[in-house]
Amino acid sequence: MKLAIDAMGGDNAPSEIVKGALLAADKFKNIQFTLVGDQAKIEPLLNNHQQFDILHTTEMIEPTDAPVKAVRKKKNASMVLAIKEVKEGRADAVISAGNTGALMTAGLFGAGRIKGIDRPALAPTLPTINQGQGFLLLDAGSNMDAKPEHLLQYGIMGSIYSEKVLGNDKPRVGLLNIGEEPGKGNQLSKLTYDLLKEAPLNFIGNVEARELLQGAADVVVCDGFSGNLVLKSIEGAAMALFSLIKNELTSSLFSKMIAGLLYPRLKGIKKTMDYSGYGGACLFGLTAPVIKAHGSSNANAIFTTIEQASLIVEKNVVKTIEDLILKINEEWKK
Amino acid sequence: MKLAIDAMGGDNAPSEIVKGALLAADKFKNIQFTLVGDQAKIEPLLNNHQQFDILHTTEMIEPTDAPVKAVRKKKNASMVLAIKEVKEGRADAVISAGNTGALMTAGLFGAGRIKGIDRPALAPTLPTINQGQGFLLLDAGSNMDAKPEHLLQYGIMGSIYSEKVLGNDKPRVGLLNIGEEPGKGNQLSKLTYDLLKEAPLNFIGNVEARELLQGAADVVVCDGFSGNLVLKSIEGAAMALFSLIKNELTSSLFSKMIAGLLYPRLKGIKKTMDYSGYGGACLFGLTAPVIKAHGSSNANAIFTTIEQASLIVEKNVVKTIEDLILKINEEWKK
Repeated sequence: MKLAIDAMGGDNAPSEIVKGALLAADKFKNIQFTLVGDQAKIEPLLNNHQQFDILHTTEMIEPTDAPVKAVRKKKNASMVLAIKEVKEGRADAVISAGNTGALMTAGLFGAGRIKGIDRPALAPTLPTINQGQGFLLLDAGSNMDAKPEHLLQYGIMGSIYSEKVLGNDKPRVGLLNIGEEPGKGNQLSKLTYDLLKEAPLNFIGNVEARELLQGAADVVVCDGFSGNLVLKSIEGAAMALFSLIKNELTSSLFSKMIAGLLYPRLKGIKKTMDYSGYGGACLFGLTAPVIKAHGSSNANAIFTTIEQASLIVEKNVVKTIEDLILKINEEWKK
Repeated sequence: MKLAIDAMGGDNAPSEIVKGALLAADKFKNIQFTLVGDQAKIEPLLNNHQQFDILHTTEMIEPTDAPVKAVRKKKNASMVLAIKEVKEGRADAVISAGNTGALMTAGLFGAGRIKGIDRPALAPTLPTINQGQGFLLLDAGSNMDAKPEHLLQYGIMGSIYSEKVLGNDKPRVGLLNIGEEPGKGNQLSKLTYDLLKEAPLNFIGNVEARELLQGAADVVVCDGFSGNLVLKSIEGAAMALFSLIKNELTSSLFSKMIAGLLYPRLKGIKKTMDYSGYGGACLFGLTAPVIKAHGSSNANAIFTTIEQASLIVEKNVVKTIEDLILKINEEWKK
């Protein structure tokens, strides 16, 4: 198996990216890595490791670059060249911790869509609090004005991933909505409900945003605008609460001392809420796995994302999606 | 001033509703209350208080009732009769802690819309963590498939309320979106951005869900589906975190003892996040103020909601909205 990794994307590139890849290389001897980026910076970190090749480029897409423009203009950017590796068959999957919008654009232009999938979806795994495996949220921001058919396709892609990679038997697919009863929500959610009901999925109906972290579903389907709002709302609420707790616990010497004793436990909570432990966000619907690692990824997060990528390749997730979508489309023609 | 209060709505009705009204009656001698509900249950709590009348009915809308059907069928429900009081000019505002959907329906059917407002909006105030006054979120679930003009109207109504009732000078009006730059988001948010830019408002541009609790804006405008998702996501994340903290802090005797010392502080945090302290959610766009108190309201929350209602009446919020909408519509005709 061969993975192409954008070595220059993310806050801690290239050092943590390379370190993470080295950790993975130790564990997965069957993976060959192509690191795309500045040879002068990457090579010293590698010690001539046999599982690594470097594809040299000094061009990079910055976090602040406008995605479409950057992908069009910076034809030799590390991210764009990494995508080209899968497009031209030299790699099985791509990982980047760089600009999310640019990766979605480069993935769509470079790797292209699976036949029968209208729009790719960005699918992070979010935490659940009951020792769960988290849940897959899709779309979290790729497709702003989605149609019911798109959401049906998200349900199918998410369900396949949840089953094959996360090991959930008959993953529970829920439709993000503002109430549980059928008939709730906006035009999009009402029409999507009817489609999902008839699909070959374990569709459990509407799920409310309030219940997501409790593990209400394994796969939560929504349009990209809503998904992004939910993701950011949860992040914002968690950030706000941690900052309140920190302020309270350091407001006096007495509470500071007590808080010192509790920090390890509070850190555990922070870890539960930190979804980088679940790997990166997959871009589903492309002809090859493209995975967005968190911008702030350290070596461990990159290791986890590589493990995830290798599972997606091993379990043939893309091919399974292709086949099922084809089958469903043929049945609907009858 | 006369307020009509649905004495039978909410988890703690009628006792906490009546207690809250009695607290308010003590402080606001200029308010006359009409409590709508079961006389046999309400009268013993009142001690012949001079500021109170009872409008007797035994019919009630339940929390689980389907809103539209319930409002149509239960013509003598306490909530429906309370709305009738403002409709027929016997009260200046209505408060209910009952079924939200039913209150929106009863308000729309009963009180009717302000001329020039196409759709009413439900507007709760959410907390901000920096000792702020919270921010107004509208619409939080009244209008599922909103158009740009609706969101413009929400901006105007929210800004007037924020200025007149919450005392914000030139309230910062933000558009809920998935990124800060203009041009981000879905079709609705792009078109709304252009409208808000030209409106007589202190429009500060797009605001992201992640920044809301930090006090990114005083008034946050969105469609009802998105607003409800954000509201519920924040609630869900806070609930999840508190439950994690509770589990961690009671997992051993040692941490239990320490936690005991910290509980008062953690309670303070819970209070900061509890938005019932900011009053109820206004239904803007109706010809009279209709306010939804939290279902779980205790006497204090009812007191706060009554104070809020009296300010809305005193500051002539409805009339100000009417005048400004009229003026804007006339200017646009030119």
